[in-house]
Amino acid sequence: MTKKELFEEIKKKESFLCVGLDTDPNKIPTHLLKEEDPIFEFNKQIIDATADYCVSYKPNIAFYESLGPKGWDSLQKTLEYMPKSHFSIADAKRGDIGNTSNMYAKAFFENMDFDSITVAPYMGEDSVTPFLMDGKWVIVLAHTSNKGGLDFQRIVNQETGNYLFQDVMIKNQEWATTDQLMFVVGATRAESLLDVRKVAPDNFLLVPGVGAQGGDLQGVAKYGMNKECGLLVNSSRGIIYASNGNDFADVAKNEAKKLQQEMATLLEKYL
Amino acid sequence: MTKKELFEEIKKKESFLCVGLDTDPNKIPTHLLKEEDPIFEFNKQIIDATADYCVSYKPNIAFYESLGPKGWDSLQKTLEYMPKSHFSIADAKRGDIGNTSNMYAKAFFENMDFDSITVAPYMGEDSVTPFLMDGKWVIVLAHTSNKGGLDFQRIVNQETGNYLFQDVMIKNQEWATTDQLMFVVGATRAESLLDVRKVAPDNFLLVPGVGAQGGDLQGVAKYGMNKECGLLVNSSRGIIYASNGNDFADVAKNEAKKLQQEMATLLEKYL
Repeated sequence: MTKKELFEEIKKKESFLCVGLDTDPNKIPTHLLKEEDPIFEFNKQIIDATADYCVSYKPNIAFYESLGPKGWDSLQKTLEYMPKSHFSIADAKRGDIGNTSNMYAKAFFENMDFDSITVAPYMGEDSVTPFLMDGKWVIVLAHTSNKGGLDFQRIVNQETGNYLFQDVMIKNQEWATTDQLMFVVGATRAESLLDVRKVAPDNFLLVPGVGAQGGDLQGVAKYGMNKECGLLVNSSRGIIYASNGNDFADVAKNEAKKLQQEMATLLEKYL
Repeated sequence: MTKKELFEEIKKKESFLCVGLDTDPNKIPTHLLKEEDPIFEFNKQIIDATADYCVSYKPNIAFYESLGPKGWDSLQKTLEYMPKSHFSIADAKRGDIGNTSNMYAKAFFENMDFDSITVAPYMGEDSVTPFLMDGKWVIVLAHTSNKGGLDFQRIVNQETGNYLFQDVMIKNQEWATTDQLMFVVGATRAESLLDVRKVAPDNFLLVPGVGAQGGDLQGVAKYGMNKECGLLVNSSRGIIYASNGNDFADVAKNEAKKLQQEMATLLEKYL
C-alpha cells in the first residue's frame, strides 16, 4: 500500500483509526473459550464489527508469541481474515544486525504478508534497512508513550542539540522514503508532536496510547496532522475489551464508531 | 543460574565460550535435510560436539521464527536438549511496554525455560524490568558490534557527558543487580571495552562478533575481563558452519576446542 492509497482510504472512511489486536486469552469473553481457536474467533468478530470504522489493524506479536506455535497459527489466520483495504501492522518491535533482520523480514513479509512491521532503532541502519522491501513499510520506534520512554529518548545530543528521538527520525529518513517509513510516537504528550513534526513533517505517525494509556485525540490531531493526515491513531484495550460479555463485538463497534466520528470532525477541521 | 555458579562453570571448563545456534536450513549440510527435523538434528549434533568446550548456548530467535510454527518446535527441542549446566540465552532482542514485555517474559521464561533473554533498551525501564524474574537474567543491548551500532549508541549526552550506551548501562544497574543483568557489547572495537568497564565493572558482558564479525579475543580479554571473568564470548558461524560436509560436527568441535584453549590461556593470564 502506498502513502497515497492509505490517504485515500482515510478520506473515504473519514477515519485514521487503527485497531490494536492485543488479544489475551485471559481477557476475552469466556464463552469463546469453547471455540477451537478462541483467539482467532475473537479477532474475527472484532474485525467484522470494526472494519467500517478503521483503516488499519495492529496485532501486537507478543500476545501471539506467548501462546507458542498455536499462537502463530491464530495470528496467520487473523492476518488472512483482515480486509485487504486495511493496512496491516505487525507490532513486533524487532531489531537486529543485518543478516538476522533479513530473517525477521522473511518471517513477517514473506511467510506472513503484513504490510508493515514496527522496528526498534537502537542498533542503527542495518537493523532497519533489511525491512525496506518492495511495497512494505518500516515503522520505527521514535518517541514512545510508556513511562520508560523518557529514560533515553529525550537525551539531548551534545553535537546536534536534538533529542535522541529526533536524531533517530532524521537518520532514518536518510535510509527510507516517506512511502516506506513511519514512526511510532506516543499520544500521552501531545505537544511533543511539535518536536516530532519539526524533523519529520511528511511521514505518517503511528500513535498508540489513545484510550487506555490516557492519550488525547484532539491534541494529537492539532499538533500532529499534516496535509495528508499523516496519522494512524491506535486504540487497543479501549475497543476490544470495552465489554467482556456476549455483547463484546457490538460494544467494540460502538467504541470504534465514536472514535471514527471524532476523527471525521478533526479531519474536516485540520485537513 | 547465579553469577557465582556461572563463574564456577567457567573455571571448571577453562572456557567462557558461548556457541551461537544461528541455524539456517540453507546453510546446514544437505544430508540433514532428509531428517524429520533438520534444524534440531543439526543443533543436537553441534551440542554433542561442543558441550565440553563451552559454558553457554545462544539460539538467535529470528532464525527459528522465520520458519513459522515448526521453527518454534525446533527451538523448544533444542532448549530441552541443552545440558542444564550450560547457560541458555534466547537472543530475541525484545523490548516493549510493561504489559507486553510481560507476555514476552512468559514466552521465553515460562512456556520455554531459558535462563536469559536479550532485550533492547530504547523504551526504557518498563521494557526491561518485566524480565527480572527469579533466577532469570536480562541481557541488555549496550554497545553492539554491527555497522549501525555507531549510528546512535555513541551519541554524547549533553547533560552527563556519557555516551548513550554508557547511560543505558548506568540506568539499567538502577533496576537490576549484577546477578540479573548482563550487557551485549561488541568485540569489533576491543578498546571500547574500557568505556564499558568504566560504568559496569562487575556485570557479565555477552560479547558477540568474535570470528565471522572480525572481533579479537585477545583484546576482549585484555580490556574486558574482571575478577570473576565477567565475559561470555559468542561465536556462531565460525563454529557451526566451519564445515558444511558430513564432518561438520567434528570440525565444529575442533573450532570450539581451539577457542577454549585460547580462553584457558587468557583466564590464566588475567584472572
